[in-house]
Amino acid sequence: MKESLYIIKIGGNIIDDEAMLSSFLKDFASIAGHKILVHGGGKMATRVAEAMGVPQQILEGRRITDAETLKVVTMVYAGYINKNIVALLQAAGCNAIGLCGADGNVMKAHKRIHPVTDYGFAGDVDEVNIGLMKALMAQQLSLVFSPLTHNGQGLLLNTNADTIAQEIAKAMSELYKVSLVYCFEKPGVLLNAADDNSVIKNITVTSFIDLKEKNIITEGMIPKLQNAFTALEAGVKVVTIGHASNLQQLIQQQAGTSIVNE
Amino acid sequence: MKESLYIIKIGGNIIDDEAMLSSFLKDFASIAGHKILVHGGGKMATRVAEAMGVPQQILEGRRITDAETLKVVTMVYAGYINKNIVALLQAAGCNAIGLCGADGNVMKAHKRIHPVTDYGFAGDVDEVNIGLMKALMAQQLSLVFSPLTHNGQGLLLNTNADTIAQEIAKAMSELYKVSLVYCFEKPGVLLNAADDNSVIKNITVTSFIDLKEKNIITEGMIPKLQNAFTALEAGVKVVTIGHASNLQQLIQQQAGTSIVNE
Repeated sequence: MKESLYIIKIGGNIIDDEAMLSSFLKDFASIAGHKILVHGGGKMATRVAEAMGVPQQILEGRRITDAETLKVVTMVYAGYINKNIVALLQAAGCNAIGLCGADGNVMKAHKRIHPVTDYGFAGDVDEVNIGLMKALMAQQLSLVFSPLTHNGQGLLLNTNADTIAQEIAKAMSELYKVSLVYCFEKPGVLLNAADDNSVIKNITVTSFIDLKEKNIITEGMIPKLQNAFTALEAGVKVVTIGHASNLQQLIQQQAGTSIVNE
Repeated sequence: MKESLYIIKIGGNIIDDEAMLSSFLKDFASIAGHKILVHGGGKMATRVAEAMGVPQQILEGRRITDAETLKVVTMVYAGYINKNIVALLQAAGCNAIGLCGADGNVMKAHKRIHPVTDYGFAGDVDEVNIGLMKALMAQQLSLVFSPLTHNGQGLLLNTNADTIAQEIAKAMSELYKVSLVYCFEKPGVLLNAADDNSVIKNITVTSFIDLKEKNIITEGMIPKLQNAFTALEAGVKVVTIGHASNLQQLIQQQAGTSIVNE
């Protein structure tokens, strides 16, 4: 039987809140067994870019990564955020190791080619090296990923953290029973956007179509859920979406919205 | 018989010169067998600090690491420099993984307590975890260290790269036949400071005392050589000092100055 592996993604809203991050990392440290944390950016990249006089352009929620911005995100994501998370996890008794896609050639990508928009140094993932991750986890290490990949030709690439989490989850399904957890600022997918108590417990492909037709699930959430179904198709056991403060419950599917097969 | 391990330290002068760094990394990549690279900082930390309005104080060649400077060096050393070196090594066919002392709890330190000077968040090394490094090298990985450690309580600490290289070399001598190579801006220890062709090929404790008495070895070089002898006492096989452009010759002791037992 495959061992369990929890892959948990946190975004900028948690990273920017010191108390929330500290509490989240303690919860993460207390998860028994194999676990991988994927972190996004946060306001610090924007602050550092501003201080260094690097203008930032955000298009449809994605940062346009010109050469100077690539320097900033490499510093902030792979340096400041990643190493501080690792140090905090060590303090919480969790033996963590911080990685980006270039480390051990874990994740290779190519520079995005887009017919209309030049996203700059943005990477789309081509391959995930599961062998090294397995070897590291055999050393009882928890892995902490910053959202950077490389192209194998010496270039680092800025890569969406949701995508990194999903690609790792899909690839690792070959070896583990994978649960993928996306932490965001809401307790889950809501039946009524104004009511945090209206979390939809489970979504299947059938109920997803139904919820879309009724306009209950709208724009921002649709790609997230479509990605979740892609992950399930690739062998991921369950995808859960919920608030970071409920991590313990989320991994047991006792909170948040679980996206599951029929 | 123990396998060979090369531990090579490069400083800011190489890191700041793109062409020299690229050529050096190709040489490093071509070394067969186990190898570890330890890199220092460079001018980028000073540039980023300036851009972010963080005043820098250098005392006797050491950066005073206040809280804001710690942020800057974590970004620049563990982020920008470390991950770019890893990506460049991958491009050169060397499967490298970037680490700081917090990763896998590889290197624990305590905040320096000094009776006169407050060095801020500067770390003095307490312990080196050789087990993880051995396991990573068994995966055919080359290790790339940024000069940061942690105190086990969530705090990262700025640590001298020469010291990091030496501590790793000493600890790894238990498992490997270790050669420690310090790359700097000179071809070796010079008999005549004005003549780059006057490299002293070998220095032993006896000849060191003699060279000091004759004032051939002066201030800057004395602590470097004393550290080299400490490393030899701890089991390191040979310490070589020379120019980064001669890496291939340095590791074979065909260039630079080798500090050896009598």
